[in-house]
Amino acid sequence: MAQKPSIPKGTRDFNPEQVAKRNYIFNTIRGAFETYGFQPIETPSFENSETLMGKYGDEGDRLIFKILNSGDFLSKADESAYTEKDSNKLTTSISEKALRYDLTVPFARYVVQHQNEIEFPFKRYQIQPVWRADRPQKGRFREFYQCDADVVGSDSLWQEIEFIQLYDSVFSTLKLEGVTIKINNRKILSGIAEVIGASDKLIDFTVALDKLDKIGEEKVKEEMLGKGISEEGILKLQPLFTLSGSFESQIESLKGILNTSEEGKKGIEELDFINNAITELGLTSATLQLDVTLARGLNYYTGAIFEVAAPKGVQMGSIGGGGRYDDLTGIFGMNNVSGIGISFGLDRIYLVLEELGLFPETVNKNIEVLFINFGDKETLFSLKAIKQIRLQGINAELYPDNAKMKKQMNHANKRNIPFVVLVGEEEMNSNIYTLKNMVSGEQHKVSLEDLINHIK
Amino acid sequence: MAQKPSIPKGTRDFNPEQVAKRNYIFNTIRGAFETYGFQPIETPSFENSETLMGKYGDEGDRLIFKILNSGDFLSKADESAYTEKDSNKLTTSISEKALRYDLTVPFARYVVQHQNEIEFPFKRYQIQPVWRADRPQKGRFREFYQCDADVVGSDSLWQEIEFIQLYDSVFSTLKLEGVTIKINNRKILSGIAEVIGASDKLIDFTVALDKLDKIGEEKVKEEMLGKGISEEGILKLQPLFTLSGSFESQIESLKGILNTSEEGKKGIEELDFINNAITELGLTSATLQLDVTLARGLNYYTGAIFEVAAPKGVQMGSIGGGGRYDDLTGIFGMNNVSGIGISFGLDRIYLVLEELGLFPETVNKNIEVLFINFGDKETLFSLKAIKQIRLQGINAELYPDNAKMKKQMNHANKRNIPFVVLVGEEEMNSNIYTLKNMVSGEQHKVSLEDLINHIK
Repeated sequence: MAQKPSIPKGTRDFNPEQVAKRNYIFNTIRGAFETYGFQPIETPSFENSETLMGKYGDEGDRLIFKILNSGDFLSKADESAYTEKDSNKLTTSISEKALRYDLTVPFARYVVQHQNEIEFPFKRYQIQPVWRADRPQKGRFREFYQCDADVVGSDSLWQEIEFIQLYDSVFSTLKLEGVTIKINNRKILSGIAEVIGASDKLIDFTVALDKLDKIGEEKVKEEMLGKGISEEGILKLQPLFTLSGSFESQIESLKGILNTSEEGKKGIEELDFINNAITELGLTSATLQLDVTLARGLNYYTGAIFEVAAPKGVQMGSIGGGGRYDDLTGIFGMNNVSGIGISFGLDRIYLVLEELGLFPETVNKNIEVLFINFGDKETLFSLKAIKQIRLQGINAELYPDNAKMKKQMNHANKRNIPFVVLVGEEEMNSNIYTLKNMVSGEQHKVSLEDLINHIK
Repeated sequence: MAQKPSIPKGTRDFNPEQVAKRNYIFNTIRGAFETYGFQPIETPSFENSETLMGKYGDEGDRLIFKILNSGDFLSKADESAYTEKDSNKLTTSISEKALRYDLTVPFARYVVQHQNEIEFPFKRYQIQPVWRADRPQKGRFREFYQCDADVVGSDSLWQEIEFIQLYDSVFSTLKLEGVTIKINNRKILSGIAEVIGASDKLIDFTVALDKLDKIGEEKVKEEMLGKGISEEGILKLQPLFTLSGSFESQIESLKGILNTSEEGKKGIEELDFINNAITELGLTSATLQLDVTLARGLNYYTGAIFEVAAPKGVQMGSIGGGGRYDDLTGIFGMNNVSGIGISFGLDRIYLVLEELGLFPETVNKNIEVLFINFGDKETLFSLKAIKQIRLQGINAELYPDNAKMKKQMNHANKRNIPFVVLVGEEEMNSNIYTLKNMVSGEQHKVSLEDLINHIK
């Protein structure tokens, strides 16, 4: 019976133009990753459930797509969960596999599993889809790509510096000029919490501070008070709320605030080192900015924290982020492996490039020339020419049917094919091709060699 | 708690070398697809279950991976199935989505869903993973890629001809010379069944005939007899069993066998047309061969049937296949859309190239030059040079830590990095770089410009 076809909510079909535009971004990111010495790996779309579950918090566990066991899965169902009809409890006994939720946990699993084959420091990149059972909304999907680059096995700060260069390189190549690379350091946040006597409230404190942009100074202070941070402590924070100006002047202010915290001073030292190197090396089109309110799921990060903002004037959340984590592989039993990584947000970058009209005009160039079909004899002759043209790497197409001329020309127009070739009796006899430029409408009679040169 | 990490059976991690080799094949296929005028589309990894179920037979339904509904899925579970503990019956009420099983059904769904945006004839290609809960074995996986090109909206035989050229082009570019492109036509098989009075047993007849290679003439005849095909009919088949020689001579024999079947004669005409064009156009390294025993899940195909065999001497099943189907989109309510398509078997092609040593030596070329780290001052100086080198598109890496020289050189060796650059006090003062060739062991002092030219 005929069905009205549709796709699951939160998923997308991509048509040729969309695939071409997405590949333009993927290829740019991939090219930069490789230029910077990262090597690609790929991991399976689904992992054993125990690899993923418990790694992303309760909310994450809920959003992981679980795959039903094959065959008579109920025969192994947990008896008591089945009797109680407890979905949550039943799941582990009827589902052993789950779709990957991000690329970071599978990467950690990969490093631990293959540690004996890997030469450290290991610089890997991975561009693959991930799946989340999130409520779909504008710009948020249930299937989307992540583009991650990470280094594990070294705690050198030169990596922070190279990642900043890498961000600058990708966005400059995409002609997306004016992005801001925000940087912070967990040690700065820990230091501030220490100084205001709220070390035990680090998460509450950073969660509140992270909202400064959105809810303003007063509300942030209220939230902190509500979380039990003292009035006195908040008073000490005052310079933070008005922190502005250059990277260097912010560093100077922080030195004043954090002069009693060893950890805070270490954070300042790291930021200073990174900023000095970037100043010496220069960025092409991005700006590096210190943002002491930046936290990004702090629990995860142990040092640098990155986030990339689209150019001013574009309403869009972060288009990239990352940071240093010092014990990622610990969850799989391999300790003391320092790591740092960054990620690019493909879908948001796509929307920004679209909004600013930054996709190159040629991005959707597909077929360069269409041969009109005048019948079998002419077509065989045409295919000989097409064969030579394709050997030159030119994308060429034959209209498969001997349809009306108008229909075939319409096809060329609708497909945005710039050149059309007409081969009739006369052309076959003189071994000459009529080449029509579909933009200008001009027609020329040319040899095959000239035809190839013209299209090239 | 630490877990010993592993991945689900039938899935694979790909290390950088494997990704590079796979991409070499993907890029070759993609390049040929585009040269021949195919445009890429992508569809979601999972589809609504009703899109997939019932399209691949009972066995297929069983092998489709189902995704468990999110949240309290048991609240909507079918009451009677739950009471009966009937896994099969329960599935539809607790799982609404499933991982795609192939690219053909999602493509049909895409064409019907987007028919108003598509300009026909529509030449699309799609290179994406599919999932099957098959028993894993050598060369058979639960997650694997398919590489498909199809045209819908035209029944022109010139497409059969172009697909043969496309196969030849891909395998020639891969330097996999000597593949055999086998062709048959459903109309030939129908014609034969008609002639021997077994039209009602077409499937039984072709299933038996398809085994000729494996079980031999006598056993094929036995099977046919067992399926109720008459002795007299089988006698008429005799010329088929000894059919050999050139395409043309086989066509001549078929003309004798099929002279009373209109459908058979049509099949001969089609094969003749295709063979004549290919003879005129020539193939680069493949051979076109008529194989009247070729059936490949006949129900599906209505005209040409293709299968590609690896070069003689390589033990490997088919490395590609396809054919013409005349009503693929009918399952989604869109009738009379003729289609034809071919597929490349990535994993098998990989194994063949590996066995024959056909991957280019440069396929795993990643980093071209490593800068040794002698300390922060030297590294900052090095990064300025690395920046210039990367701008030239050369993959360059800085060793992140100021480790012992020997350790850093070992890293270069293990990673197969061909050049290493040493920058110390002397080099910084004179703006000269010491370039070491890791293969020959030679060392030169060069300017940055010479360094770049040397590596290029």
